[in-house]
Amino acid sequence: MLPAGRDDARFDTRFDVVGIGNALVDVIAHADDGFLDEHGLVKGSMTLVETERAVQLYRALGSAVEMSGGSAANTMCGVASFGGRAAYVGKVSDDDLGDVFGHDLRAVGVTFRPGGPADGVPTGRCIIVVTPDAQRTMNTYLGVSSLLCVPDVDEATIAAGQVLYMEGYLFDRDDAKDAFRHAAAVAHASGRRVSLTLSDSFCVDRHRDDFRDLVADEVDLLFGNEAELLSLYETESFDEAIRQLRGHCPMAVVTAGAHGSYVITHDEVLHVPVEPVERVIDTTGAGDLYAAGFLYGLTHGRDLRTCGRLGSIAAAEVISHVGPRPLVELKELV
Amino acid sequence: MLPAGRDDARFDTRFDVVGIGNALVDVIAHADDGFLDEHGLVKGSMTLVETERAVQLYRALGSAVEMSGGSAANTMCGVASFGGRAAYVGKVSDDDLGDVFGHDLRAVGVTFRPGGPADGVPTGRCIIVVTPDAQRTMNTYLGVSSLLCVPDVDEATIAAGQVLYMEGYLFDRDDAKDAFRHAAAVAHASGRRVSLTLSDSFCVDRHRDDFRDLVADEVDLLFGNEAELLSLYETESFDEAIRQLRGHCPMAVVTAGAHGSYVITHDEVLHVPVEPVERVIDTTGAGDLYAAGFLYGLTHGRDLRTCGRLGSIAAAEVISHVGPRPLVELKELV
Repeated sequence: MLPAGRDDARFDTRFDVVGIGNALVDVIAHADDGFLDEHGLVKGSMTLVETERAVQLYRALGSAVEMSGGSAANTMCGVASFGGRAAYVGKVSDDDLGDVFGHDLRAVGVTFRPGGPADGVPTGRCIIVVTPDAQRTMNTYLGVSSLLCVPDVDEATIAAGQVLYMEGYLFDRDDAKDAFRHAAAVAHASGRRVSLTLSDSFCVDRHRDDFRDLVADEVDLLFGNEAELLSLYETESFDEAIRQLRGHCPMAVVTAGAHGSYVITHDEVLHVPVEPVERVIDTTGAGDLYAAGFLYGLTHGRDLRTCGRLGSIAAAEVISHVGPRPLVELKELV
Repeated sequence: MLPAGRDDARFDTRFDVVGIGNALVDVIAHADDGFLDEHGLVKGSMTLVETERAVQLYRALGSAVEMSGGSAANTMCGVASFGGRAAYVGKVSDDDLGDVFGHDLRAVGVTFRPGGPADGVPTGRCIIVVTPDAQRTMNTYLGVSSLLCVPDVDEATIAAGQVLYMEGYLFDRDDAKDAFRHAAAVAHASGRRVSLTLSDSFCVDRHRDDFRDLVADEVDLLFGNEAELLSLYETESFDEAIRQLRGHCPMAVVTAGAHGSYVITHDEVLHVPVEPVERVIDTTGAGDLYAAGFLYGLTHGRDLRTCGRLGSIAAAEVISHVGPRPLVELKELV
């Protein structure tokens, strides 16, 4: 099990989970596979894009819908939707999309700590192309979100959360790496638990050593999918990855798409099946919402199998419609 | 029938329809009837709101989705979705929502004429509350859209469209009234037809005399629902309204929700049934898309019954999902 920490009762914390991540508004459009080919996009991946490329892709894309997104922010909305108490640390600008992002967090009861201002850099956005097979391909213009740095990490908020949840996507810039290490140190000093999602195998690939150090030094609970875990330990064997992981980190949850998920502790590997879905419409947010369910369960004293099941229920809801956040109260589904 | 105009062949025009209206981005959220009561909102209506009220309502509202809207802009997207050639005149600002609005028009092939700049006034937005009965209640913060004036009316574009389509919502400000009269004069001087949608019975109520004059002087084809038509002629009798209308305007199309629609010419009243819909999700855009189908048919030489049927098909598509614009190519549905 997780180390209990100095005080693990829910009652002396203000938040169940505090998330840190890239604050992004999603720009969602449908396109066929030809669009991906034409623009050199790798299906299912997340690619960071600069202004010019973002403008070019957006121009080429059909009508879009704008919805708040950002991986860890989606997770915090999921925690709140289960009835949990969530806070979020991430940077937006004083523009329309920044207003939208802040509103949509507060609207579902997530406490938002936007960090300090940074003039002249717009709120980040993620251009998401959804193909007819419901896969999402993401092109992220980070904007101000990537400028998150140590002073933006509200220490009182981190200290007030049972579990800190950090988004690997943000771990792409040195300032953000420092912010993560600082947040983890604050959490541990306050007797809290630290979790991390690996987010993307390419991101793990770019920063493998830093990720491994972070996992070994600070992470109590690791989230990732199979590709990310294999990338982290540079192996093609799931068993070998689990073996290495167990030396580093007390618990991990590995999602495997339609094959369900695995909860890995020192003693066991629990398999959790997926929840049935009538029709998969858009896989955006599947991992984010899985994490939401798992974290909600964990911070409410549920056993690990139930935590996994809550994750599966939340993921099933979010892939049944367009958009990365639940459209119903997840607490009504359990 | 409509007056033929000096030249009514499709081939010497660049556009089938040119729309003028309030350029708005819709902010769509779901809420129950209690929310409407609590905030004094009249279900199904459109209310103009100032900044403070817009901020207050938005703050009270749950998570929202942003999608381009604006009544006449929705209609032009519908015309384009049928395969027609459409242009749109309306004012946005140089901000995120202005970018979104322009993108979503161009993305479906509508030519956008945004008019001159107006610094410091944001792009307009319409806060739409969708209740469980699929009715929409709209609160419009006009922003820069309402500053449309005569110099914004691109004369070459108006002259290049078979039919001019003007949105009654915009007819709330004196500058816009002047712009409408100017646009209608340009259209008629170029041998084009002029159409108008009454948009909202409260708007008709506020400007009844101006609307009546406009209809009598300039309008060849009037769109409206029953309530708007009754308001225009201050009567409770549909027959009496039709009698007065026939003295003013060669053709009108009156929508009646689930009862279908009526095409009214000097000689006859054609009833057009609704297209069956499995489940009505959000009625936003129903009238806009009806007009799109009708205008597409009319500018492509279809008989009036077929024009009405195209309107019904387009309306049925748009009420089957959240959002005011078609999600499929309407030309695939006919």
